[in-house]
Amino acid sequence: MKKLINKPENTVIDALHGMAAAHSGLITVHYEPNYIIRADAPVKNKVALISGGGSGHEPLHGGFVGMGMLDAACPGAVFTSPTPDQIEAATKAVSGEKGALHIVKNYTGDILNFEMAADLVRADGIEVETVVIDDDVAVKDSLYTAGRRGVGLTVLAEKIAGAAAEEGRSLKEVAEICRKVNANGRTMGMALTSCTVPEAGKPTFDLPADEMEIGIGIHGEPGRERIKIQSAEKITELLTETVLSDLPFNAGDSVLAFVNGMGGTPLLELYIVYNELTKILGSKNITIVRSLVGSYITSLEMAGCSITLLKMDDELISLWDKPVNTAALRRGI
Amino acid sequence: MKKLINKPENTVIDALHGMAAAHSGLITVHYEPNYIIRADAPVKNKVALISGGGSGHEPLHGGFVGMGMLDAACPGAVFTSPTPDQIEAATKAVSGEKGALHIVKNYTGDILNFEMAADLVRADGIEVETVVIDDDVAVKDSLYTAGRRGVGLTVLAEKIAGAAAEEGRSLKEVAEICRKVNANGRTMGMALTSCTVPEAGKPTFDLPADEMEIGIGIHGEPGRERIKIQSAEKITELLTETVLSDLPFNAGDSVLAFVNGMGGTPLLELYIVYNELTKILGSKNITIVRSLVGSYITSLEMAGCSITLLKMDDELISLWDKPVNTAALRRGI
Repeated sequence: MKKLINKPENTVIDALHGMAAAHSGLITVHYEPNYIIRADAPVKNKVALISGGGSGHEPLHGGFVGMGMLDAACPGAVFTSPTPDQIEAATKAVSGEKGALHIVKNYTGDILNFEMAADLVRADGIEVETVVIDDDVAVKDSLYTAGRRGVGLTVLAEKIAGAAAEEGRSLKEVAEICRKVNANGRTMGMALTSCTVPEAGKPTFDLPADEMEIGIGIHGEPGRERIKIQSAEKITELLTETVLSDLPFNAGDSVLAFVNGMGGTPLLELYIVYNELTKILGSKNITIVRSLVGSYITSLEMAGCSITLLKMDDELISLWDKPVNTAALRRGI
Repeated sequence: MKKLINKPENTVIDALHGMAAAHSGLITVHYEPNYIIRADAPVKNKVALISGGGSGHEPLHGGFVGMGMLDAACPGAVFTSPTPDQIEAATKAVSGEKGALHIVKNYTGDILNFEMAADLVRADGIEVETVVIDDDVAVKDSLYTAGRRGVGLTVLAEKIAGAAAEEGRSLKEVAEICRKVNANGRTMGMALTSCTVPEAGKPTFDLPADEMEIGIGIHGEPGRERIKIQSAEKITELLTETVLSDLPFNAGDSVLAFVNGMGGTPLLELYIVYNELTKILGSKNITIVRSLVGSYITSLEMAGCSITLLKMDDELISLWDKPVNTAALRRGI
């Protein structure tokens, strides 16, 4: 196993200490239970946004804690849901009178643990709403999921709902915006290589040297099919056509186009995929009004990418453009 | 070869088109010869900063074009120096009365081609200064270098000199600041895996499953030694001790600590290395006053990292903190 780690079981805690040291003005990391909060939390007169999930997807979610995005992130063990006590403690640490929004990627463990935490928090008199993100068009049900998986769209939902919360909107309104993002966005991913969970010590799956997996999940879960490696043009077509036909996106639509790296793919290649995507969308008269290219929701060192499209209107554009100040996304600050 | 590319020979041009589309408000990409300039270039009353080198190190240099950093970047073929005509055209496109600074990583081809370009530009009446970055402590001479290689410190030099230029300082002053950065910074890197140049189609070197290369160059050039894989703690010690003893850095020093990913290493692991680095520097009474953790100067999909330390004083801190607005580094904007 070729990784820059110490004891495999310490991977998450070691990384959290590093994050805390690297971004001390921006975030505060609490340990046992582990969670990351804005350094200035709790923020008055603001709905608190809390997300979380297994570690191994960095910068998601901890890298998105800060002004204009999340108030707290709960990192579980690698590819493992955070525990209810983590989520409960994080939610209580950042929430005030306007209540809390839980943004949850659709995995069975995450859903259960966020639900349990929400009940515990409500018992303390804090109002909690939950929005489940389930944007992955690759599979209907999967290894860890009833229904679709939550993947790349989560990044966009956290940014846009975060901006709405920062404006002082109510819990219902912020949840509504977050649901609107989920309703209007779709994602599909692919992998060129597997990844290795530190405590497992061997690749999650085997992928022959000349094959790729289309529709991969962010934990190495199986996708739709394994096929021979193709060009970036063909790969982008495969992913984009599936995404477009699902919502569906139509001629005349305006979209945010997000090309995401899975962790082991260099930026050079992501720009190549983005270029192919611009050609496909251009040919269909779909306009890219905003974009994001980079590794924002990853699967450890997996090589591959995902494509997320989000149908944009003036409200979503305005919220996307609002300032954000986090470790991994910073604009207007 | 598992890559998100089309024809290998089109890798750089395809990625440039993607970059241009993704950052259209920020940069303008010119083709044949290829170079990237600030969308608002030439900027009046400002020394123009031009850098460049082989592609495959993204986001370096194109991702650092914008307010507060570079005016132009010249991307060569993968791991190949840009040609004099690229550098000449880019320099002329962005330079005004205050002249141009060429920031050149110390590789023989880069040095020669930037020198030729500088002569051509001077013949047109534009003053040009050149600063060579040679921060890599791993080897004295190397496959492509007389003297030390230019690596991670280049990112910091471009940021700090860029801020000085933005303040309206003279060419001599900006060059002086850039030389000061080079004099006070040192880097060492390591690789867990090789990388594959698209047009070569096979890994640049072979590295057994249980070995790593200490002192690796950013083109897969050999380093100091191959040893069995060790923990992040030991790897960080190895790199840091070599960097510290070279300048040398001493108790009481203030430093900027930069942990850089080589392209295929996820952020999770970089934070673990950063955590180890904080422990080592803390034990030596060296204070980290600023930090940078992420993949900023890469070697295609190589897994590994480098550590750069830069001795900071009030002037360098002030320039580091100045606003910057580029595709890959954004702060205060």
